[in-house]
Amino acid sequence: MNTPHDAAVTADMSTGPTPAAATTKVSVTVIGLGNLGRALARTFLDNGHPTTVWNRSAAKADPLVADGARRAATVTEAVAAGELVIVCVLDYDAVRQLLDPAAEALRGRVLVNLTSGTPGPARELAARVAGLGAAYLDGAVYAVPQTIGTREAFVLYSGAADAFEAHRQELGILGDAVFVGTDAGSTSLHDVALLSGMYGMFAGFFQALAIGDSAGIRPTELTTLLVRWLHEAAAALPGFAQEIETGDYTTETSNLEINAVGLANILIATRAQGVPVDLLTPLQELFAEQIAQGHGRAGMSRTIESLRHRRTDG
Amino acid sequence: MNTPHDAAVTADMSTGPTPAAATTKVSVTVIGLGNLGRALARTFLDNGHPTTVWNRSAAKADPLVADGARRAATVTEAVAAGELVIVCVLDYDAVRQLLDPAAEALRGRVLVNLTSGTPGPARELAARVAGLGAAYLDGAVYAVPQTIGTREAFVLYSGAADAFEAHRQELGILGDAVFVGTDAGSTSLHDVALLSGMYGMFAGFFQALAIGDSAGIRPTELTTLLVRWLHEAAAALPGFAQEIETGDYTTETSNLEINAVGLANILIATRAQGVPVDLLTPLQELFAEQIAQGHGRAGMSRTIESLRHRRTDG
Ligand SMILES: NC(=O)c1ccc[n+]([C@@H]2O[C@H](COP(=O)([O-])OP(=O)(O)OC[C@H]3O[C@@H](n4cnc5c(N)ncnc54)[C@H](OP(=O)(O)O)[C@@H]3O)[C@@H](O)[C@H]2O)c1
Ligand SMILES: NC(=O)c1ccc[n+]([C@@H]2O[C@H](COP(=O)([O-])OP(=O)(O)OC[C@H]3O[C@@H](n4cnc5c(N)ncnc54)[C@H](OP(=O)(O)O)[C@@H]3O)[C@@H](O)[C@H]2O)c1
Repeated sequence: MNTPHDAAVTADMSTGPTPAAATTKVSVTVIGLGNLGRALARTFLDNGHPTTVWNRSAAKADPLVADGARRAATVTEAVAAGELVIVCVLDYDAVRQLLDPAAEALRGRVLVNLTSGTPGPARELAARVAGLGAAYLDGAVYAVPQTIGTREAFVLYSGAADAFEAHRQELGILGDAVFVGTDAGSTSLHDVALLSGMYGMFAGFFQALAIGDSAGIRPTELTTLLVRWLHEAAAALPGFAQEIETGDYTTETSNLEINAVGLANILIATRAQGVPVDLLTPLQELFAEQIAQGHGRAGMSRTIESLRHRRTDG
Repeated sequence: MNTPHDAAVTADMSTGPTPAAATTKVSVTVIGLGNLGRALARTFLDNGHPTTVWNRSAAKADPLVADGARRAATVTEAVAAGELVIVCVLDYDAVRQLLDPAAEALRGRVLVNLTSGTPGPARELAARVAGLGAAYLDGAVYAVPQTIGTREAFVLYSGAADAFEAHRQELGILGDAVFVGTDAGSTSLHDVALLSGMYGMFAGFFQALAIGDSAGIRPTELTTLLVRWLHEAAAALPGFAQEIETGDYTTETSNLEINAVGLANILIATRAQGVPVDLLTPLQELFAEQIAQGHGRAGMSRTIESLRHRRTDG
């Protein structure tokens, strides 16, 4: 693939691997300078990359331009300026609106879309971008703007594997770069899964605080303990995953029966405090289903089988 | 309170703070040598405490006795041997059965019950033990047996505050010792809340893995990412707790509306994969209720108000 990046590598090699190589850093464009986009552009700029920026409301680019970023007058100009073109706007509709007029300029570039979305639109966009002769990477950012560029942040990518390999270093500047597959939709499938896990944790948090509330326990006091406990309890998850992956649910400890009794006691005590238990009853039903099928002695991880069993061809 | 511990402190002071003080370490009894009880006894023994043990099936004491623990022939003998008496058995019924015949021997001691239970029975036991002239601490252990005695473990205590203060050091050997109030029921109220939070996180885990499953994502691969993400996302909880504590739900970012749209998109994508969404719809309903009441621009933490609103006098 004859991308501008390949050209840069060639130029670099002709002058030899000297300190001057720093001046040949990959040029990056960031389109969309919202809370996240500004942090992305700032990080590339701080790392010495020639950085071009564009935002619908142009004023958001001012501080970046003051610090050395180049302002593009149009999206087409922005796309043309970067070997690596990052887009980070509100949603996929906005991405399409923005890129349509710049289609020609995309040829030979790597488009990295860090806008949140779902698998279908990601795949459509990937196909369209490939048709224009550009490489497409769909990304999802796990960080707040403040942690972009630190080891706390990680970013998932899927789509064009060779483009990911070629730009692994630049992408790694934003946070750990993890490639999750050549299907452009894979990033958002991972995203849906990870965010579901997060909302489950949030539901547990609300349930915990409602119980604390009914018992006069201060929210901040309880949350300090809860965060500590969640960190520890999360250590059990890789073991559960192993059981699910192998299908071997044999366990010496913490089987479904023990957990079902434990959860039932928790819900009884919760109801006794007058607190509704709706957030946790669906889990209780999954436990009950597994036990009714004779799996009480299996590991709690076998609960996944009840979700599998309920799967339809959606 | 003239406990055996006070006597030990006096003896210690009369000989001065010399290395010989090590020989006057508080004597500890551990009743119940299941998976957790054995780890508790082992930890006290390893820390040089004179340790007496008793278990219904006597053979479980053998390895401890081989390493220097004293075996009591009866529960009464066990109680009599320790200034600090730890009980850790299956449930509160077992605790009562065990201690009834040993009631007289309890006078002047500190009884620490690390058996899991609920507030009512804890309060009853506390009253009964106080009536026998002993101090009662109700405890809950947040650790697996392997981490007892490390900084990873923490143990909540409630009940007799002076007994906790007097034995803070010994209790601290097991893991961080946190006192959560003079109501003996407070430990298990905290426990119900913390375990609810954990089951919420587990529900999210199952939901995430079911989605991963439908998309051919390996459970162990997804879980590595999920654990990392949960650790990061948990960093938002203290901020939510602050909002709940102050009742000031003003937020610049991540309001209820944004989260409701995010969650709705997640559930749509999940259904599109054929995966049931029952585990997360109760949270969605709470979001919807708050938004219907005009709080879409408030912080997501305001969700707690819907749980409060649904509270009954249980
Ligand atoms: N913030 C985070 O912590 C975070 C973390 C992970 C993922 N994300 C994702 O990253 C993306 C951006 O988030 P953000 O926090 O940066 O959002 P934001 O602060 O609300 O910024 C939105 C950006 O999109 C632009 N935009 C919206 N509609 C547009 C349109 N029709 N045409 C052109 N530009 C348009 C806005 O331009 P104007 O300035 O002209 O309005 C602005 O630059 C979202 O998909 C979000 O889910 C954010
Ligand atoms: N294991 C953990 O990681 C953990 C963590 C936090 C809290 N806990 C709590 O700690 C407590 C003990 O847990 P564990 O894991 O040690 O359980 P375990 O391994 O199943 O041991 C249960 C213990 O209770 C004794 N017991 C049961 N019924 C009895 C009765 N009627 N009379 C006398 N003794 C009786 C058993 O004696 P025999 O040996 O004679 O059967 C055994 O010593 C439980 O309340 C549990 O919820 C455990």
